[in-house]
Amino acid sequence: MKEGTEGFRLTDEQRLDWLRLIRSENVGPRTFRMLVNHYGGARPALDALPELARRGGALKPARVCPREEAERELDASRRQGVALIALGEPDYPPRLRMIDDPPPLLGVRGKLGVLISPMVALVGSRNASAAGAKFTERIARELGSAGFIVVSGLARGIDAAAHRASLASGTVAVLAGGHDHIYPPEHENLLKEILPNGSVITEMPLGWEPRGRDCPRRNRLISGLSLGVVIVEAARRSGSLITARMALEQGREVFAVPGSPLDPRAEGTNGLLKQGATLVTEAADVLAVLRPILGQRFDLPVEEPEARQPPPGEPEASERNRIVALLGPTPVSIDDLVRLSQSSPAIVRTVLLELEIAGRLERHGGGLISLL
Amino acid sequence: MKEGTEGFRLTDEQRLDWLRLIRSENVGPRTFRMLVNHYGGARPALDALPELARRGGALKPARVCPREEAERELDASRRQGVALIALGEPDYPPRLRMIDDPPPLLGVRGKLGVLISPMVALVGSRNASAAGAKFTERIARELGSAGFIVVSGLARGIDAAAHRASLASGTVAVLAGGHDHIYPPEHENLLKEILPNGSVITEMPLGWEPRGRDCPRRNRLISGLSLGVVIVEAARRSGSLITARMALEQGREVFAVPGSPLDPRAEGTNGLLKQGATLVTEAADVLAVLRPILGQRFDLPVEEPEARQPPPGEPEASERNRIVALLGPTPVSIDDLVRLSQSSPAIVRTVLLELEIAGRLERHGGGLISLL
Repeated sequence: MKEGTEGFRLTDEQRLDWLRLIRSENVGPRTFRMLVNHYGGARPALDALPELARRGGALKPARVCPREEAERELDASRRQGVALIALGEPDYPPRLRMIDDPPPLLGVRGKLGVLISPMVALVGSRNASAAGAKFTERIARELGSAGFIVVSGLARGIDAAAHRASLASGTVAVLAGGHDHIYPPEHENLLKEILPNGSVITEMPLGWEPRGRDCPRRNRLISGLSLGVVIVEAARRSGSLITARMALEQGREVFAVPGSPLDPRAEGTNGLLKQGATLVTEAADVLAVLRPILGQRFDLPVEEPEARQPPPGEPEASERNRIVALLGPTPVSIDDLVRLSQSSPAIVRTVLLELEIAGRLERHGGGLISLL
Repeated sequence: MKEGTEGFRLTDEQRLDWLRLIRSENVGPRTFRMLVNHYGGARPALDALPELARRGGALKPARVCPREEAERELDASRRQGVALIALGEPDYPPRLRMIDDPPPLLGVRGKLGVLISPMVALVGSRNASAAGAKFTERIARELGSAGFIVVSGLARGIDAAAHRASLASGTVAVLAGGHDHIYPPEHENLLKEILPNGSVITEMPLGWEPRGRDCPRRNRLISGLSLGVVIVEAARRSGSLITARMALEQGREVFAVPGSPLDPRAEGTNGLLKQGATLVTEAADVLAVLRPILGQRFDLPVEEPEARQPPPGEPEASERNRIVALLGPTPVSIDDLVRLSQSSPAIVRTVLLELEIAGRLERHGGGLISLL
């Protein structure tokens, strides 16, 4: 089973520019896409960064990743067996392309081919019960036999059980840090076992030490790679619930395994079930929902919608001031901002991009923004 | 909270006739209602029984309960503190009136008043887990505090836990046998504790020893009394699932408590959840569904629809033969029978009543019938 293979390939020079742009200050996946769309490529976007930051009112110039630094990362990656796959290349996971903020570059170790196979995520508590781990192994094996690659986060507990039971059929571990910072450290061996039939991926640079707050960002990749996410055990406020919420936002299926109301490790999953997640007691429950989706074609836009619009000119200072004056620490929607500013959406987007590169803008969910 | 108090009262003589009719051979709750509707009362129905059985082709005359036998049952009931409440009397449980086949007479011990309060059933495995029993106690207490009478079947396990935790707020135990045959025997003491604030009811005569096959009949009363049924623990093929099915047929809410897929005692409840039962982890989940229903008026038909039709004449022998010839051991629908026989629905109903009294008819669910 393959989900899609079309796409172009970057030249070495383009890959270097992409890497420089995504490693530059205040450039995240969403800003990366807007910049490339606005300027028609990573190179002109890199050239525009200093001026954008200045116009956005940066207190100090935004740091642009130097060419040499990007070359060093590419070399080091190559030495460690990490391929940098660009958004739009044939090896890039097809479902991940469709999320709002796909990483422009994915660092991949292991077997590239699994990334274009249909995937399902299995996640849950780090302090899993023996029953939870056993159930995870059973369902991971069954989903693997059914042709699905099992995705998880290499964490202790449910994640580890999911990877272990799908080593033969293929499993993908998504890291919250760089490829040289495996967490937890005792899973180095598990990781080595994953590589022959699966892969380990991250969007973070080599040298990046994972922090707790990197997990939600990582979790969006776990759900974004997958047709659906199965939550096995999850306490009331648990990281797995964040993965579930991201799956919903990305339009992916959410499955939850029920548990006793007296078991705190089932509070999160029972809560998801009350909210409409599909109840899972066996792999067949997951397959019944995912197989029909798998049959559906999912067409990717050939071109980003924004790319069809003429590149915006530089906003007038007075117009920029009017837009910035409407912003404050309270999140507002971009739609409201366009309406209240009486500027064109293209101008508003440009001003927001300037603010973002200048490190003055915070983006929240649902198209909400605020000034930092 | 009271659900309804309107209604008439039977005279002693009428109660005796009702008791004789329902204790007569081949007369169940549904036939009872049809007979009373057809003949305008229990007395004329009793008078018609022998002739009906003869016309239905009974091999031997159907046994009509003699007046003396009914008098003895009434006396014995009175001595044991069992009141016989008739369908339509003010003390008759209002929700139970609305099921397809409400018992014409309910034998009630304890406090009559609880039967017109809003009720919720709590049922589950006899071999309950400690966690299941604990959860049952918690939710029973909470539902009791919220003003609901807790209904269950006096069985071991979940049922007993439900009764015990609602002794103070009021609980109703429904028996599968007569009031002098408590099952299991070790629950005699629990039963005595129920009586001060609750009641114990059955439709079966004194002296009736409960058999396994009486349980589904009893379970229809458990669900029929209640606005909803909560299934706490239930294995794959368990009596509690029959109660759940009956609740659905009666238009009552079905709730299920989730459990681990590895726990066989949760197979039934997880299955119910997959079929759309409401997931329960706390009493609030039940109250959120039941309270709005409680607010709704539920009007009872003032008169049974059949009673408005003119009493049928005796079918011609040729017509009866044509109808009987269409029947066999394979269940068919009454609608099909009417269509195929080209007789009027009233005539077909009368012939079926004759066959039923003669002990030659079996009624299945969904309006299906077959010849014995």
